[in-house]
Amino acid sequence: MSEDYRSMWQSLGLDLVAHDALLGVLGKFYQDIYLAQNNRPEGMGYFDFVMSEVHGLRIKELLDEKKAGRKIIGTYCVFVPEEIALAGNATMVGLCAGADFATEEVEKILPRNTCALIKSTFGFKLGKVCPYLEASDMIVGENTCDGKKKAYESLGPLVSNLYVMDIPQMKSDQGRALLKAEYQRFKQAVEKLTGVTIDPPRLKAAIETVNNKRKAIHRLSKLRQADPAPISGLDALLANQVFFYDNPQRFTDSVNKICDELEKRVAEKQGVFPSGTPRILMSGCPMAVPNWKLPWIVETSGAVIVGEESCVGERGTRNLVSTSGNTVDELMDAIVDRYFQVDCAIFTPNPDRLNHVEEMVKAYKADGVIHYGLQFCAPYLMESIPVAKALEEKKIPTLRIETDYSMEDVGQLKTRVEAFIEMLR
Amino acid sequence: MSEDYRSMWQSLGLDLVAHDALLGVLGKFYQDIYLAQNNRPEGMGYFDFVMSEVHGLRIKELLDEKKAGRKIIGTYCVFVPEEIALAGNATMVGLCAGADFATEEVEKILPRNTCALIKSTFGFKLGKVCPYLEASDMIVGENTCDGKKKAYESLGPLVSNLYVMDIPQMKSDQGRALLKAEYQRFKQAVEKLTGVTIDPPRLKAAIETVNNKRKAIHRLSKLRQADPAPISGLDALLANQVFFYDNPQRFTDSVNKICDELEKRVAEKQGVFPSGTPRILMSGCPMAVPNWKLPWIVETSGAVIVGEESCVGERGTRNLVSTSGNTVDELMDAIVDRYFQVDCAIFTPNPDRLNHVEEMVKAYKADGVIHYGLQFCAPYLMESIPVAKALEEKKIPTLRIETDYSMEDVGQLKTRVEAFIEMLR
Repeated sequence: MSEDYRSMWQSLGLDLVAHDALLGVLGKFYQDIYLAQNNRPEGMGYFDFVMSEVHGLRIKELLDEKKAGRKIIGTYCVFVPEEIALAGNATMVGLCAGADFATEEVEKILPRNTCALIKSTFGFKLGKVCPYLEASDMIVGENTCDGKKKAYESLGPLVSNLYVMDIPQMKSDQGRALLKAEYQRFKQAVEKLTGVTIDPPRLKAAIETVNNKRKAIHRLSKLRQADPAPISGLDALLANQVFFYDNPQRFTDSVNKICDELEKRVAEKQGVFPSGTPRILMSGCPMAVPNWKLPWIVETSGAVIVGEESCVGERGTRNLVSTSGNTVDELMDAIVDRYFQVDCAIFTPNPDRLNHVEEMVKAYKADGVIHYGLQFCAPYLMESIPVAKALEEKKIPTLRIETDYSMEDVGQLKTRVEAFIEMLR
Repeated sequence: MSEDYRSMWQSLGLDLVAHDALLGVLGKFYQDIYLAQNNRPEGMGYFDFVMSEVHGLRIKELLDEKKAGRKIIGTYCVFVPEEIALAGNATMVGLCAGADFATEEVEKILPRNTCALIKSTFGFKLGKVCPYLEASDMIVGENTCDGKKKAYESLGPLVSNLYVMDIPQMKSDQGRALLKAEYQRFKQAVEKLTGVTIDPPRLKAAIETVNNKRKAIHRLSKLRQADPAPISGLDALLANQVFFYDNPQRFTDSVNKICDELEKRVAEKQGVFPSGTPRILMSGCPMAVPNWKLPWIVETSGAVIVGEESCVGERGTRNLVSTSGNTVDELMDAIVDRYFQVDCAIFTPNPDRLNHVEEMVKAYKADGVIHYGLQFCAPYLMESIPVAKALEEKKIPTLRIETDYSMEDVGQLKTRVEAFIEMLR
């Protein structure tokens, strides 16, 4: 890393020693998990570059944007509409974190029995190692699960700019009204932050920008229906992860470029693994960078992941926002309509999710489902039991995994995953 | 127990063998914890009788009410307004359970990392040992914590009559609108269940009935401000627990009768423990019958509990519903206003709770606070950290306890509690 970056990190208040340690681990992890893969599409070179510069060039870009008068909005959830941020001349970045950090400090603020994702978020703040968080002009929390909802009360005093968005728990008329009111309040907050009034052309353009990101991911997903799979689940997951960080236009172009390449592969029946490799659909909790443990175990155990039913995956990217409206209110309604379809386990009941898992199994010709539950994530762990039962009743083999970010259970998980994959052959 | 009860239990579908075992344990527990106390008010004889007949006479009464055309509504939370049930000619009973039962069966349906209260509820259903649940014509779940919200999805298929009420997460205008809409929907559901149209006189009478229960508890609480405390925390907790089961009028009369007796005790400076005994405020998760473990440890370790900041306690019973309205809509608004003040940790932010704890410490002259967190109860465990910190900053000694319903940690808890109490002397 160049000295420029070091002074940049210092200016953001990062702990350089701790941050060096984090980047060291991340680089090693990336090397061992990503670069060790075979038959990767050339287009993944872009994402390798993104990851090598994830705390470098991208942060510099964000700081340059700030200098030019743009604002940065950091978020923790797919319920925060990027359309509204972009329309208000702000850049949105994901802040969720996928690695344990400063755990001892974290457990002074959060109960030990808190999910690793939330703990990680706090660890990155307390350990001063997240330049995205420090570069954000506004940090948006949201009332999804109990863990996040209550954790934001403790995050508030640690940052100066936390904004909390309420989220409904039921897909009722009242629930939709609440979401709409909250998106309108968020729009006002963004306008206040940036000084930009969101008008129909701005909002429509932003909707198209985000739709285009999603369309590129849809195109990538569709290509994964092929056997042999033209891209690994790990690489596709990375694209879904970078969805939350990268410049939207460049992201769209980069994914489409990979898709051009994958189309050729599919036409030539080339793949990352041999034809007939057992195909896995992952379903469950989101996986933030660098939480690649379970996909890595799966894809080094004789299977290929062909889809992610996850916030970092198809739950997060499916469904476009309609651009048919002409007024801000019509376009805002279209945004509400789109996000209100997200079938997160925080909703009760949440039958769409099971339907979606079944659709994905069919579309991606999955041989089995691995449900990924983060330990202490009550919504997904609870929902996983009836979901797995329903899938098994439809003769879709399903393995429920409950884990955290530590590497201590890798051996045990590998044994279970291998046995499951063996059964699918 | 008479043979009449056995045939009654059988007609409700209870597992008689398992139920006998449960009553045996409960009876022994009551003997060891309650009847072993000294200096109990005579009026507690009524509650001893209630407990000895908790699955007998009270169930017979409910079944007699059913025969006479009333309906029984079972609930799991203080957010379900008893006023609406009573106004619709229904009797409301609490269904939460405070003992582990059929754990192995439960863990096929719920994750192991689910709080003991929810697991117990399922255990009582799966083990067929809860006559209240089986006697209910309608079972009301509510979207409070993630655990309950998602567990009701799995309870639904186990019962034939589950109704789920949505609850807001923020005390915003939208949150209040949601609660009001849900209370109106509940009113309609009760009317449909009972065939009774809720009119202003019925609703006002029901409000007065429930207010009177609360006023009796307020009177009891106020008497606990005296030193020496005229009643043990265990006995006061029992009154708060029976609040959810008993005939409302009889409950009110019985509590008032105890208060008459306690007034004399206070005048004569008589108490259950010597004057100067360290005084504890309990704060945190609700304690359902027979979850008396922690209060029993506290009161056998040299302290007296003078208040419960809990749903089964002052969080649940404080604030009356205004009876000044004359229309159903005005009275419903008064009900919403009252319940919207409940400072459950599911709300974010929830500053009223800390204020209430501080008020209670002052009013009941508590020397310290013991925060009771059920293991895996994210809302209370998370909130307990900033609450305890704020209390300590105000020089109010606070001990955070995290436990479940098992007796395995009694020794360990007793050591911690004794050390805390020693510090207060």
